[in-house]
Amino acid sequence: MDFPYLSRLARGIEPYVPGEQPKVPGLIKLNTNENPYPPSPRVEEALRGKAPQLRLYPQSDARTLREAIARREGLAPEQVFCGNGSDEVLALCFPAFFEPDEPVRFPALTYSFYRVYARLFGIPFEEVPMLPGFAVDEGGLVAGRGGAMLPNPNAPTGLQLPLSAIEHMAAAQREKGRVLIVDEAYVAFGGEPSAATLLEKYDNLLVTRTLSKDHALAGLRVGYALGAPGLLEGLVRVKDSFNSYPLDSLAIAAASAAIADEAYFQKTRDQVVETREFFRDGLLRRGFAVLPSSANFVFARPGFCGGKALFDALRARGILVRRWDAKEIAEYLRISIGTREEMETVLSVIDEIRASSV
Amino acid sequence: MDFPYLSRLARGIEPYVPGEQPKVPGLIKLNTNENPYPPSPRVEEALRGKAPQLRLYPQSDARTLREAIARREGLAPEQVFCGNGSDEVLALCFPAFFEPDEPVRFPALTYSFYRVYARLFGIPFEEVPMLPGFAVDEGGLVAGRGGAMLPNPNAPTGLQLPLSAIEHMAAAQREKGRVLIVDEAYVAFGGEPSAATLLEKYDNLLVTRTLSKDHALAGLRVGYALGAPGLLEGLVRVKDSFNSYPLDSLAIAAASAAIADEAYFQKTRDQVVETREFFRDGLLRRGFAVLPSSANFVFARPGFCGGKALFDALRARGILVRRWDAKEIAEYLRISIGTREEMETVLSVIDEIRASSV
Repeated sequence: MDFPYLSRLARGIEPYVPGEQPKVPGLIKLNTNENPYPPSPRVEEALRGKAPQLRLYPQSDARTLREAIARREGLAPEQVFCGNGSDEVLALCFPAFFEPDEPVRFPALTYSFYRVYARLFGIPFEEVPMLPGFAVDEGGLVAGRGGAMLPNPNAPTGLQLPLSAIEHMAAAQREKGRVLIVDEAYVAFGGEPSAATLLEKYDNLLVTRTLSKDHALAGLRVGYALGAPGLLEGLVRVKDSFNSYPLDSLAIAAASAAIADEAYFQKTRDQVVETREFFRDGLLRRGFAVLPSSANFVFARPGFCGGKALFDALRARGILVRRWDAKEIAEYLRISIGTREEMETVLSVIDEIRASSV
Repeated sequence: MDFPYLSRLARGIEPYVPGEQPKVPGLIKLNTNENPYPPSPRVEEALRGKAPQLRLYPQSDARTLREAIARREGLAPEQVFCGNGSDEVLALCFPAFFEPDEPVRFPALTYSFYRVYARLFGIPFEEVPMLPGFAVDEGGLVAGRGGAMLPNPNAPTGLQLPLSAIEHMAAAQREKGRVLIVDEAYVAFGGEPSAATLLEKYDNLLVTRTLSKDHALAGLRVGYALGAPGLLEGLVRVKDSFNSYPLDSLAIAAASAAIADEAYFQKTRDQVVETREFFRDGLLRRGFAVLPSSANFVFARPGFCGGKALFDALRARGILVRRWDAKEIAEYLRISIGTREEMETVLSVIDEIRASSV
């Protein structure tokens, strides 16, 4: 197809491809790291009776939500910025903090949206090769002239760097006057403290989060950044040059309610972590290579067949997981953690597949 | 304040400043063109029981909503693109259709976000001077090399070009292989047919709309574009390089329900138009200069005092309207149309102010 009216940029762009969202009844959907539990019951309450107010514009600065997040984190609302999913927050970081003549660095194996944002905003980037075992090369990430960003825990590996490594990187970046962005989409499921605990010391550190996974609100599109007010000012300026009201009133109300329900968050988070360890153990006992995971998924390579073969066999039996063609990870599957029952089903289906392939 | 970590772009940026959203009890809020009536009752129904599903990602392409809009417009879903407010849709147009070496043209007096988007995305622009009486210079808008965009009805004047003028512009732009973007935020309140009626003939024509005003859903952040699939492809590519899921599941469900309730839309739209004519007549009889309005606001200049003086006097009496300092419109107020009762109050307060200033 020819696109006569598109810009050169739009013609040449390679967009991010999210995991599929098929609506197949009975499907066990373990491909996009959604939470198997519904969000806090307070979300439903918060939405009740809100429809008539929708005639008015929402808070442009999502004040109510920023206050709720600040309370939870022990920060000031001025240290919180909210966006339409952490994807939007991460996208805004590129024009806010990076320069067209200074490459940003991120790991070679990471959330593949980073390089897409960079191309959209005309920011050059350098992908830092992984160390053996898919480890993030923390020294390499801060060896350039420009900004640096990484997810911690990383995706799709689930590996988490210790807080001390993040602090070293923040210090190295500050020394050269550049930012470090830590994308903590999965931090709730890991064992290390959040990089947010370093914010008092590092005014060049930005921590992003999403409510999609740990608060079971993927459908609501709410993410946020934590950082020094002078750093967040960059995000505010770019946001107000793009969309003054990125969060709707329902999202602000529902997300604020979910954030306030810490007990529910902890209970469901603990269930996911427990199920993850049960499932990882099951895979190990079946001869898989499984990376230790600090996220709500595992990254695993089967021993008895190829990654693509297992992906297809699972899919044929109603189980959807995620994999990529890139050579170094082509034999791996990323499997989201569902309910205990779902993961037991996955293990027995794997046993079936294995038996039938012998 | 110093911002050591911000990009040169973020340091130099001048963001759009939306109208205030004060939450003062008893305030008559006529500054941001919100609808005085609540959205369709179907919105509340559509939200009921939706909370548990929020654990799953929304439709990345807002399919359900695109189908509802397509049905209403007599188009195919492939001719509809949805975004997080028409602000986001308009922002995405800049990288999708415009080039960094080819100025886009828009009217000098228009929605002030256009030039902010242009600066964010590094697109040069030319502001085409208004004709006498604030009329849009349709010939001037298409006299350049690049794309052209305009709101029709225009903001903040409320003036609407006839469909024939839009067609001339679309034809002129197509001849040079460039787009024409018609921002129809206010089209429901005008007398002319939508430019969407020209889509069959012009594959370079993009029409944007918002549910904020005519569907009373400013708080929900839903906008859309109508155009040829090959043109919308530009928006899809840029969107998928920025944020895969810009509309949350609640917004998709609620907006779809509102779009389907055409009877409610027409009833409330007719009420607003009727009140507008009543109010305009009241202003004219009080010696105001009032532009003929095809929108849900009037743009008016008082005869008995300055624009700033009246703005302040109204504000002191709990009535919030909008004005700008720019020289050619400094004496004008843009007053949104509220309920009949609200507009009657505004007229009597104006009488009070006038009496006390004599």
